[in-house]
Amino acid sequence: MALRYDTITFLSDYGLTDGFVGVVHSVIRSIAPEVAVIDLTHGIEPYDVRGGGLALARSAPYLCPGVVLAVIDPAVGTSRRPIAVEIGGGAAVLVGPDNGLLAPVVQLYGGASRAVELTNEVYRLPTDSATFDGRDIFAPAAAHLCMGVELTDLGPLVDPVSLFPAMVPLPREEEGRIHGEVLWVDRYGNAQLNIDPDELVGFDEHVRLVFDDTSRTARRVPAFAAVAPGEVGLIVDSYGLMAVVLDRASAAAEFGLRAGSAVTIEGVDEDRRPGIITPVTISPRPV
Amino acid sequence: MALRYDTITFLSDYGLTDGFVGVVHSVIRSIAPEVAVIDLTHGIEPYDVRGGGLALARSAPYLCPGVVLAVIDPAVGTSRRPIAVEIGGGAAVLVGPDNGLLAPVVQLYGGASRAVELTNEVYRLPTDSATFDGRDIFAPAAAHLCMGVELTDLGPLVDPVSLFPAMVPLPREEEGRIHGEVLWVDRYGNAQLNIDPDELVGFDEHVRLVFDDTSRTARRVPAFAAVAPGEVGLIVDSYGLMAVVLDRASAAAEFGLRAGSAVTIEGVDEDRRPGIITPVTISPRPV
Amino acid sequence: MALRYDTITFLSDYGLTDGFVGVVHSVIRSIAPEVAVIDLTHGIEPYDVRGGGLALARSAPYLCPGVVLAVIDPAVGTSRRPIAVEIGGGAAVLVGPDNGLLAPVVQLYGGASRAVELTNEVYRLPTDSATFDGRDIFAPAAAHLCMGVELTDLGPLVDPVSLFPAMVPLPREEEGRIHGEVLWVDRYGNAQLNIDPDELVGFDEHVRLVFDDTSRTARRVPAFAAVAPGEVGLIVDSYGLMAVVLDRASAAAEFGLRAGSAVTIEGVDEDRRPGIITPVTISPRPV
Repeated sequence: MALRYDTITFLSDYGLTDGFVGVVHSVIRSIAPEVAVIDLTHGIEPYDVRGGGLALARSAPYLCPGVVLAVIDPAVGTSRRPIAVEIGGGAAVLVGPDNGLLAPVVQLYGGASRAVELTNEVYRLPTDSATFDGRDIFAPAAAHLCMGVELTDLGPLVDPVSLFPAMVPLPREEEGRIHGEVLWVDRYGNAQLNIDPDELVGFDEHVRLVFDDTSRTARRVPAFAAVAPGEVGLIVDSYGLMAVVLDRASAAAEFGLRAGSAVTIEGVDEDRRPGIITPVTISPRPV
Repeated sequence: MALRYDTITFLSDYGLTDGFVGVVHSVIRSIAPEVAVIDLTHGIEPYDVRGGGLALARSAPYLCPGVVLAVIDPAVGTSRRPIAVEIGGGAAVLVGPDNGLLAPVVQLYGGASRAVELTNEVYRLPTDSATFDGRDIFAPAAAHLCMGVELTDLGPLVDPVSLFPAMVPLPREEEGRIHGEVLWVDRYGNAQLNIDPDELVGFDEHVRLVFDDTSRTARRVPAFAAVAPGEVGLIVDSYGLMAVVLDRASAAAEFGLRAGSAVTIEGVDEDRRPGIITPVTISPRPV
Repeated sequence: MALRYDTITFLSDYGLTDGFVGVVHSVIRSIAPEVAVIDLTHGIEPYDVRGGGLALARSAPYLCPGVVLAVIDPAVGTSRRPIAVEIGGGAAVLVGPDNGLLAPVVQLYGGASRAVELTNEVYRLPTDSATFDGRDIFAPAAAHLCMGVELTDLGPLVDPVSLFPAMVPLPREEEGRIHGEVLWVDRYGNAQLNIDPDELVGFDEHVRLVFDDTSRTARRVPAFAAVAPGEVGLIVDSYGLMAVVLDRASAAAEFGLRAGSAVTIEGVDEDRRPGIITPVTISPRPV
């Protein structure tokens, strides 16, 4: 029998130390043995719905068509809805809690065509538990979708407008300065900003980066290894956004950056040459 | 050719930083290329046979039928026996060291129907090494079982009664108090106890939890997010046991709990209201 | 259609916290859906080309034939060449950056039969990015090779002699002492040395290990658990090299060892009995 979808991409904050991820794999395999499960990551910080949503949106253009299973769910067992959201006219279905986790991807693909609440107990695991919906509700729903179960068989349609919205911070331009923030710090300590290269049109090769309690001149570079020792680089990263980087060292650790940290980009004025550190009072943090 | 088993569930304390897990996958694939390997977890603390055995037992009801490959093996290379244990009348075969790791699952499924010692060199990797039996003995045995090799071809039968027994701590009731202990602290800091909800029949919604050097009133809650700020929750977790939890915070970190920590549940007396912390002298730790 | 290779073994320093590894899996699956991807490890320290190359060489004898995808690439986006290297007369093709990462394996298998630079844009992902060649260049090349694309279709042949050489440290014998170094510290704290058991012919059961600022008598043991409390063991590890070990404890933590640490093995003289710690001045570190 042909599968409707043959790939489930799985993201969570479960970590890999407990058996949560393995159990979800096993539940999927017991329902849909031919489906491939790709672990996008399970290393999202516990409860970090925003970070997980951004990770998903960032990777989405590179994912196989199919079902996305995403579980970061601090309100599991409460009235927050378990949902499945169809995007791209059925090219993909996103399964997870209605808490904003799926919203950035939905937005990226032009909104949901349909959405349902996962209430049909036929497609849940029989359980008294209310604390592991990834195992009991979301994984079975994802697997059954692959096997050809209709979206609307999983539960009643809900108005896509009623879904929890995406909270993606936008940068703000003011008097020639771009007020942005860190979206993501990766394993290497590169700090991705919510700033598009297009917004830097008109800036020189050197710009000034203003952090919480310091500022640094940075140079726009084509590669990590193009950053000289002691220099700070500003790079177009692999997802098309500006990132603050060092060569073989962590920019995040160096400047105390984490997701949500404010970063302002401004022109380098004549008194401030590359490499000079100046404590500054930063502008109010944009949201 | 049809496989006898098509899934190997793999648990170890190998971690994911070295190539141990990848090499085991590769050995399995070279013998049984069509078999799916599900990584339950490799994040068990090094040498923690008890923790690994409990993790396996906890997940077992959700695992695909097939072979379980479990390797936490501090005595590798000594006289401890490498074994394969058949349970459920052949529904599953457990492969690993005879050191108690497999015992909780065996017990859970009513004991072993058959067991063998893995001595047949035909089904081992040719090697001089005595320090990586996961690669050289256990993985090949698991893969060959999937390919249809008979259990008794792997080595001589051993009496199931001679297998290393399970060491699962039981709670103890005394004068209306339940003396239990922490079985597992998960990624979120939830502390699973060896206490069944049935044992709390007769207790109120609020109970007193007595830890090593403090005590707290806890409320029985249906969901993590039902725990108010500053409150402690007692929840039926996803494996049907009582767990001490906070909302979006680590109960284990808050109260210094780890696997093996003693926790006593008693009634809340009138002088002790929710939220009041009282240092206490705890009862001797039950085993 | 038959695959030319059906397995890709994947090693990197990407870690599992970000979505890098998942995205690479997804790119491979979108090109070569029937190919199995085995994650050897993604926990190599960031930028540690030497450590990654050694991990690959260590595991190579146990890997399925096919394609190896290896990405530790601090100079991504610069003039360092992306390459594919054929070894074993086509039994395996290694794909990654030409920075020495692949070199130990190539050396182990008697050198490259052919090598190409991955310049053909037809077999790359269309992208403006220059910071994630694992996704954009290496994964597509690996997947296309599996699907039957000819090595020489990926780009022009390069002279294998021009490839970045392996930097594997050799031990040095001097006046009856063997000057070696730590190649690898595993999860358990076992410290693998670049010393073969054959080099210890003529030494007694007890030898003296000289570390940076201390020395210890060690006993050659057949198993970790054969090391007595307080004793230090010297074992032939699962890859056939000597390793410094303790029983259920980290030798690396105990003696401050990490990859690259100098370790000298010498005979135990009469004044130095097992268990006595003597500060020493070590010989200059061999390279």
